Amino acid sequence: MGRPMARNLLAAGFDLTVHSRSPDPVDELVEAGASRASSAAEVARASDVTITMLPDTPDVELVLEGAEGVAAGAAERSLVIDMSTIDPQPARRLAAAFAERGIAVLDAPVSGGERGAIDATLSIMVGGEDHAFERARPIFEALGRTIVHVGPSGAGQVCKACNQLVVAATIEAVAEALALAERSGVDAERVREALLGGFAGSKILEVHGRRMLDRTFEPGFRARLHAKDARIVLEAARDVGAVVPSFEVVAAQLDRLVRDGGGELDHAGLFTLLAPPAAAT
Amino acid sequence: MGRPMARNLLAAGFDLTVHSRSPDPVDELVEAGASRASSAAEVARASDVTITMLPDTPDVELVLEGAEGVAAGAAERSLVIDMSTIDPQPARRLAAAFAERGIAVLDAPVSGGERGAIDATLSIMVGGEDHAFERARPIFEALGRTIVHVGPSGAGQVCKACNQLVVAATIEAVAEALALAERSGVDAERVREALLGGFAGSKILEVHGRRMLDRTFEPGFRARLHAKDARIVLEAARDVGAVVPSFEVVAAQLDRLVRDGGGELDHAGLFTLLAPPAAAT
Repeated sequence: MGRPMARNLLAAGFDLTVHSRSPDPVDELVEAGASRASSAAEVARASDVTITMLPDTPDVELVLEGAEGVAAGAAERSLVIDMSTIDPQPARRLAAAFAERGIAVLDAPVSGGERGAIDATLSIMVGGEDHAFERARPIFEALGRTIVHVGPSGAGQVCKACNQLVVAATIEAVAEALALAERSGVDAERVREALLGGFAGSKILEVHGRRMLDRTFEPGFRARLHAKDARIVLEAARDVGAVVPSFEVVAAQLDRLVRDGGGELDHAGLFTLLAPPAAAT
Repeated sequence: MGRPMARNLLAAGFDLTVHSRSPDPVDELVEAGASRASSAAEVARASDVTITMLPDTPDVELVLEGAEGVAAGAAERSLVIDMSTIDPQPARRLAAAFAERGIAVLDAPVSGGERGAIDATLSIMVGGEDHAFERARPIFEALGRTIVHVGPSGAGQVCKACNQLVVAATIEAVAEALALAERSGVDAERVREALLGGFAGSKILEVHGRRMLDRTFEPGFRARLHAKDARIVLEAARDVGAVVPSFEVVAAQLDRLVRDGGGELDHAGLFTLLAPPAAAT
């Protein structure tokens, strides 16, 4: 995700200093006009605004707070935007810790996948102070299309958790319905068509339903990443005493898909747990 | 549902003979130009095409096969259209039994609710023979907008079961997400807004998500009817050995809502099992 997002920032005219553990995207971005930094601290030293995009909570904590991390280089009054998807609680903790040093942190996870990153059509869900959000707005507008300031620190991550809950649960529902149709010997294509026009209609039925019927599971969004996000949803729910009874089953299905070797499939691959490889009809 | 559908048939110029256990709708329809019959058999004797719209499987079996039922009056080469939502298996059995007497039966359950019945915008999911479907088409066109011939007998009911599965599971997912947002102290309005633009977007998030945040649960579609349809989904899945793990939880939530006295609420009332009556934010 980081590489196409950085490209869009360059294209929008931002001065960019980049660092990554993987050298290839950095080489490519330097070629395109970015400066190279040898650490996150060096990025922060060179920048008014530092953006992180990392796989999981421990990565974000390490890159923000570790030795040679962002905290080691960021000046007072600078801004940090973490666009990774992590737990709301550590997001709030990081924002509070940086605030003590006069550094604002926004949690700004995205949805829309690699396609959305390339096309600058991401949805960006932002948590943090108003003034920090306004300061970041031109950056968000270079990266995405739906930009919502959801609330204070952590609210962006809560929103992303809600998003991942609804997306996975809807995929599972569509998978269960289309598998039921196939097993019943009914043309699942026509079922999808009939359902699209009514209250069962959704982007998931349209896009992921299509993938299920075609048995094409190239990602898109990988099941193992959604399984990680599902753990964040369950954690976020536990933290506040919310119950998510149907999503618990969906999270277990995602884990099962990963254990069965389907982690690199698109999340629509949930269908493979329910239906045989070729249509039964 | 039957009354507004009958009105639309009259408005489209069909000669209509009506019977119901409840006298009021019959009086009203007779006033509007329909003829009155004293039994289902009498309706069938007077008609080339007999339509039934009833609450559940036993009602349909009674009205089609019971004493003074449709079978007692229907002529050879007449057509029976059952627009009730029932199990696929009895729908197939009834079609086979009537076929032996030269009478075609279509299963043609609808979605779209009372609003769709009044506005003639129902989705109609049809199972049965091609020639019977073609014969019924002008009738369907007077009643609905999305008319899909899904497949042979029972296919309409399977499709409706798939529809009810996806609708209830999506409502539950949206309810779990919005309740999580509220419990996290995050503005659930903004979460809904942020999610509508992306892959979490659906008619359910739009319409039922709105009802949840407004705490307005006038039906719409009653939870007790969806609980009944959920039992049909589980039955249909069991019949063909399909697994519907997340929907099992959704069906249990619907039953719980009905047990808790929420059966007359709109099915968006699933939210009340997860969130307090007033927003926690």
